[in-house]
Amino acid sequence: MTSLEKLEARLNNGKHICVGLDSDRNKIPDRLRDDPDGVFLFNQEIVENTKDEVCAYKINLAFYENEGMRGYEALEKTMDILPDDVLIIGDAKRGDIGNTSKMYAKSVFDHFGFDSITLHPYMGFDSLSPFLEYKDKIHFVLALTSNPGSADFEKLELAGGRFLYQEVIRKCSNWNTAANIGIVFGATNPDELKNEISNFNSLFVLLPGIGAQGGSLEDVVSAFKSAGNNKFIINVSRAVIYAENSIRFAEAAYDKLIEYNNEITKLYTV
Amino acid sequence: MTSLEKLEARLNNGKHICVGLDSDRNKIPDRLRDDPDGVFLFNQEIVENTKDEVCAYKINLAFYENEGMRGYEALEKTMDILPDDVLIIGDAKRGDIGNTSKMYAKSVFDHFGFDSITLHPYMGFDSLSPFLEYKDKIHFVLALTSNPGSADFEKLELAGGRFLYQEVIRKCSNWNTAANIGIVFGATNPDELKNEISNFNSLFVLLPGIGAQGGSLEDVVSAFKSAGNNKFIINVSRAVIYAENSIRFAEAAYDKLIEYNNEITKLYTV
Repeated sequence: MTSLEKLEARLNNGKHICVGLDSDRNKIPDRLRDDPDGVFLFNQEIVENTKDEVCAYKINLAFYENEGMRGYEALEKTMDILPDDVLIIGDAKRGDIGNTSKMYAKSVFDHFGFDSITLHPYMGFDSLSPFLEYKDKIHFVLALTSNPGSADFEKLELAGGRFLYQEVIRKCSNWNTAANIGIVFGATNPDELKNEISNFNSLFVLLPGIGAQGGSLEDVVSAFKSAGNNKFIINVSRAVIYAENSIRFAEAAYDKLIEYNNEITKLYTV
Repeated sequence: MTSLEKLEARLNNGKHICVGLDSDRNKIPDRLRDDPDGVFLFNQEIVENTKDEVCAYKINLAFYENEGMRGYEALEKTMDILPDDVLIIGDAKRGDIGNTSKMYAKSVFDHFGFDSITLHPYMGFDSLSPFLEYKDKIHFVLALTSNPGSADFEKLELAGGRFLYQEVIRKCSNWNTAANIGIVFGATNPDELKNEISNFNSLFVLLPGIGAQGGSLEDVVSAFKSAGNNKFIINVSRAVIYAENSIRFAEAAYDKLIEYNNEITKLYTV
């Protein structure tokens, strides 16, 4: 299956939740924390319990890098057990001059085997193109993020009246000739989402900010429903993987995921 | 020595070249290419020959990540042999929501031991602050980069008349209360450099784009000389480390570096 086929199959089947495997050794249950393989074993149980109900997994590279070699081992082992029919997003937020972006693309796609990546737009097209040349991968470019700092630059008004994040969306849409670009749009910005959604065109939309960051599931789903658009991927990390800090953390993660899925189905089909 | 002391000692001694250790297995001399430790051995010889004449080393993480575990080993071994009195910049171009930036900071500073990092401004202050809290490190934020794509977003005009990169510089200057922020400003933009230099205030300036990317050393040095500013760090990667693809690559790197240093001294003291 191509990355696109994996994603579309799940979305068309009503699965919109991406589970973020931001697995932090300090937050996983006690019985795993002291095991050198603890982060991997935690991921394994979460994945085993959730794999039929997600539309994607998102792995935040920072949570692995900070443990050095041990972290990379956990990452590589996790990649090995992730199911082949689910989109695996490398949340790397890369972006650099061409010859460097090429190296990052090699790392994320060829070495680690991700299906998809997140990218910083700041340096412009030639910082993205070495990634986009991987036509069978899906590339999510940051447009409007979920954090308070999105006001500092992303929401600045440009001469001509658009905001910077709107210009990022316009350009990404123009650059999307291979139908392999998506955008990141924070669920904490419901008004901007409603106003901007008609300009998303064929871009997939990855929405962080639900759960620990306070965004509303209802706002997001109703905006996409009104627009007749089902290309939305709602990321939830902490609220699912740390749903319960007990021996049954993986079952609790499944329960929380089903709760989200049911809520989305209800909101989208009303 | 603190990071600041290391950097200032070199700058005040007239050393302004940062050597970028973008060491690519496919470009290093034949006799090292097939050695599993080749990238490390290449770095070791370059460093041995250049360490008294640089103001900093910059390590581009992409060039190590793409080799997986082997790359990280080369990176860790290189960190071990880098001199203690030279600023070591982790060219990572990171930037993410707070709890993730914190993890990246832990990785780059605590795990790998860099003195300094490069950062993407797009996500705003709270994406930078977990790095800035490392007060004894120096944080270079991308302002105007050296690549053609800088025209896509960085050079967009804002309502009010400033360009986006100028707003990044203004905000960085305001945020620089701990005197540990710098900016990245591409040497391929000499006119913008001349116009903007009076707003750099106390920010250190890392300038890529000389050498393989075509920026002019003379333009950069004369702009800083005119402004009476010596806080400039000119990065050269490929033009120094691949000065000669032969058994004497490290001596050739030294010769090239001395050539740059002499040229800078001549231009700055005219």
